[in-house]
Amino acid sequence: MTGTPARGRPRSEQARRAVLAAALELCRRDGFQPLTIKGIAEAAGVGRQTVYRWWPTKEAVLLEALRDLTVREAPTLLPDTGDPLRDLETFLVGAYTMTARLTGQAVAGLMAEAQRDPELADRLQAGLLAERRRALREVLERAVRLGQLSEGAASLDLAVDLAFGVMWYRLMSRHAPVNAELAHEVSAALRRLLAPPGEGASAGEGGAG
Amino acid sequence: MTGTPARGRPRSEQARRAVLAAALELCRRDGFQPLTIKGIAEAAGVGRQTVYRWWPTKEAVLLEALRDLTVREAPTLLPDTGDPLRDLETFLVGAYTMTARLTGQAVAGLMAEAQRDPELADRLQAGLLAERRRALREVLERAVRLGQLSEGAASLDLAVDLAFGVMWYRLMSRHAPVNAELAHEVSAALRRLLAPPGEGASAGEGGAG
Repeated sequence: MTGTPARGRPRSEQARRAVLAAALELCRRDGFQPLTIKGIAEAAGVGRQTVYRWWPTKEAVLLEALRDLTVREAPTLLPDTGDPLRDLETFLVGAYTMTARLTGQAVAGLMAEAQRDPELADRLQAGLLAERRRALREVLERAVRLGQLSEGAASLDLAVDLAFGVMWYRLMSRHAPVNAELAHEVSAALRRLLAPPGEGASAGEGGAG
Repeated sequence: MTGTPARGRPRSEQARRAVLAAALELCRRDGFQPLTIKGIAEAAGVGRQTVYRWWPTKEAVLLEALRDLTVREAPTLLPDTGDPLRDLETFLVGAYTMTARLTGQAVAGLMAEAQRDPELADRLQAGLLAERRRALREVLERAVRLGQLSEGAASLDLAVDLAFGVMWYRLMSRHAPVNAELAHEVSAALRRLLAPPGEGASAGEGGAG
């Protein structure tokens, strides 16, 4: 990713991708706080002005990097196999492990920064958080349509907020890990919580493992 | 809270309480970011040096204010009526409404600041978050001892993290409110999730309303 850039449009796209990848990688390695546009530009092998031409702040770089990643990883992150309960598990494993492995520092840093920057808060909400809630809700809605889950003890909106809530809470508080095991536990919990009438006592068991 | 301080030890305690109350009130009114030691001192009617003598930063003031409040409100926040399911509901209503009404800006600000300050993160964890998790877990454990709830579809630790997770997520993301209605919903959800075998399908209903 250093030196010898190609020409014209392809070069722009190549540089864009290098910048986004460098931002995520530096953030993963060193955390959100030490991240700078200068560091991103160096790691991406582009000039600082190239970065500033497209993104005014490191937050803007990270937000685009996270959205890009979400789109690229859509097959994993937005699974639709025809088996919504399996998709639920896959979705949560994908969301939690990607957060733990790759993007945790970036999203926690952006969320923290959003507490002091209302405009960033709006963009984070519209560009990432609302999108992710909608995606999980869709998986749950498919399961409801097939009669595998039903609203009752909890609304789908609450179920979605419980699933992302525990991830965010652990990500920021760091008292317990965000990983595939948590995804299995939360998947089982949501199945129990949204079990159709009459299946309450046992429906939660299948998902864990 | 202004002027004419009393003398000796009682004056210290009075000033201490005035400082803590002022910090929470200013944070509630204007948010975490604009809060300063100077503003706290003025609102409390004490000199800046008085504040600095006890607390090096506004974060230290807020953390003590939150802990103080938790101790003072213990009857509401740590209920023990002999009916653990009622206590669960009371606990969540108390936690969520106090957060929404009084301390939301302060705790969200501290959590955000903790992302860039590992020492604050440790103190926030040890001084507040771990304490609150332990308190909720105790309520759930009492219900388990009486056979009203049981681990199975979810561990008590997961249940605790789901309950605080949804609160923190909404507090920081602000896409939906943290209020008594949420407390009722989460209480019902936890009862369903932790319902003893055979009571799964109906146990979640009683708590809402």
